[in-house]
Amino acid sequence: MSTTSSSSGFAARLSAAVEQRQSQIVLGLDPDPSKLWPQALEAAKGSSVAGEAASAVEAHCCALIDAAGPACVAVKPQLACFERLGAPGREALGCVVDHAKAAGLLVLADGKRGDIDVSAAAYCASLTGATQTPYGAVAGLGADAFTANPYMGVDTLNVLIEGARADDAGVFVLVRTSNPGAADFEDLALADGGVLWERVAQAVDRLGSGGGLSDVGAVVGATAPQHVARMRELMPRTIFLLPGIGAQGGQVENLAPAFAPGRAAGLVSASRSIVFAYQEHGGSPADAARAQAELLRDSAWALGAEG
Amino acid sequence: MSTTSSSSGFAARLSAAVEQRQSQIVLGLDPDPSKLWPQALEAAKGSSVAGEAASAVEAHCCALIDAAGPACVAVKPQLACFERLGAPGREALGCVVDHAKAAGLLVLADGKRGDIDVSAAAYCASLTGATQTPYGAVAGLGADAFTANPYMGVDTLNVLIEGARADDAGVFVLVRTSNPGAADFEDLALADGGVLWERVAQAVDRLGSGGGLSDVGAVVGATAPQHVARMRELMPRTIFLLPGIGAQGGQVENLAPAFAPGRAAGLVSASRSIVFAYQEHGGSPADAARAQAELLRDSAWALGAEG
Repeated sequence: MSTTSSSSGFAARLSAAVEQRQSQIVLGLDPDPSKLWPQALEAAKGSSVAGEAASAVEAHCCALIDAAGPACVAVKPQLACFERLGAPGREALGCVVDHAKAAGLLVLADGKRGDIDVSAAAYCASLTGATQTPYGAVAGLGADAFTANPYMGVDTLNVLIEGARADDAGVFVLVRTSNPGAADFEDLALADGGVLWERVAQAVDRLGSGGGLSDVGAVVGATAPQHVARMRELMPRTIFLLPGIGAQGGQVENLAPAFAPGRAAGLVSASRSIVFAYQEHGGSPADAARAQAELLRDSAWALGAEG
Repeated sequence: MSTTSSSSGFAARLSAAVEQRQSQIVLGLDPDPSKLWPQALEAAKGSSVAGEAASAVEAHCCALIDAAGPACVAVKPQLACFERLGAPGREALGCVVDHAKAAGLLVLADGKRGDIDVSAAAYCASLTGATQTPYGAVAGLGADAFTANPYMGVDTLNVLIEGARADDAGVFVLVRTSNPGAADFEDLALADGGVLWERVAQAVDRLGSGGGLSDVGAVVGATAPQHVARMRELMPRTIFLLPGIGAQGGQVENLAPAFAPGRAAGLVSASRSIVFAYQEHGGSPADAARAQAELLRDSAWALGAEG
């Protein structure tokens, strides 16, 4: 089933990008200043320790985008990794986002945000929108989508979703994550049937808009592939963001149901398996990252339905 | 029951501060650049729109701290409100945190974070710790505690809690929040008894350490006072952070069970009711904020047990 033509907003942009770039791979950007590519360390400059570290992080991420980006459809910067470097980290994040967009990649800001009314709106302004001030508008990060946490309820999700939608952007709601502890609360059986993540999945399905794929996506851990078919049943139009490939133990071969509504409905996120490929397979960091990203792209693409 | 003497780390510091300052009030800092105190607008300076707005936000928050801070024990900056102003917003946040600490206030960073292993550790580095880089250590925000979201499970909370503990800091886990949508997931009845937030409360109780009050607190909406007694039963040593007073409709008089283990066990958070008191009650913004904070302090203190 082709969903591209009838999608709107974020989903349409994503579908078009998947088709154009022939990739469903999302390049995770989780830079650790003590594990950067050697070339990035040499590029560091700045008038403070934070400034030096942030410039090295920026160089690392941009080199990674240059190497692996052509095999990907989006990048997923982990906000925590930039926030820990303070204001220079935020500057670096902005430059990395701009670099990714210039390379034709979508940007999925990974901060797993969630809060009430005005605070949720402030996150939208920060990530996909702008803030009105008496001095003029302050542009946010310019992300195409961001991740959100559902714990506080549908009203908190609604503010995030409506804010993102006004910016033509999307939201990926945590449904069933890839960590072992996901079993603690997400998997709890409910008194009136089903488990918690299924209830969240139903809300995600309801909250989405668009005739084809929905503009409200779901974060679905690739380490629990037994759940993917059930998730697809509950969320037939939802774009799944599937982290946990590679370093966290997930196998892309187990994810076929994710791609059933079309290739853009299943985004495969990988970070450490690409960035550290050179340590496992040899070669330069860039060459190894490129090869690993292409491998992942090809194995995901082979599983997808006609996009 | 006195718990101060046997508490350790964050809980001990908080207990001592509550006793010394005779206050359980947490001053929420949620600055909206279009609703700042007039005096702050005049203080704006900067070479960019974001810089001007951030300097006005900083002036507003520092003036609010100067006015209402003496009646409070801590400030609670809403991270989203600063993040939306980009790198200048992060600079302003750092200055506001330093101003609050210089005024003897603890700092509870409100970002409701939650993520897996390395990302959770990065949030700790960002908020309470430091990041090791090849160029030296980059100090984080220097908060005394931060808020966290439990949805992803105990392993994700554990990384946050252990990271904060290593920095002598605390974590406040969302248990039952103050928004109407809290009923959607937090209140769901579980197949083997109880509701979701009770299960989270049990985890919060288990995860805490310290002989007296625990270093793992709970965010407990003041708009659902019928739950407070049950929460205290499930979390006898837990410090409750009670938002929702004032603008969100909560009444401090309904919260007595929160204070049962000692006054430091119940922190009353208020923001809009203090900062906008001048619009309701007249007077200068600073005078009205001071008066409102003192009123809130006195009504909470009157309910508390011997601290």
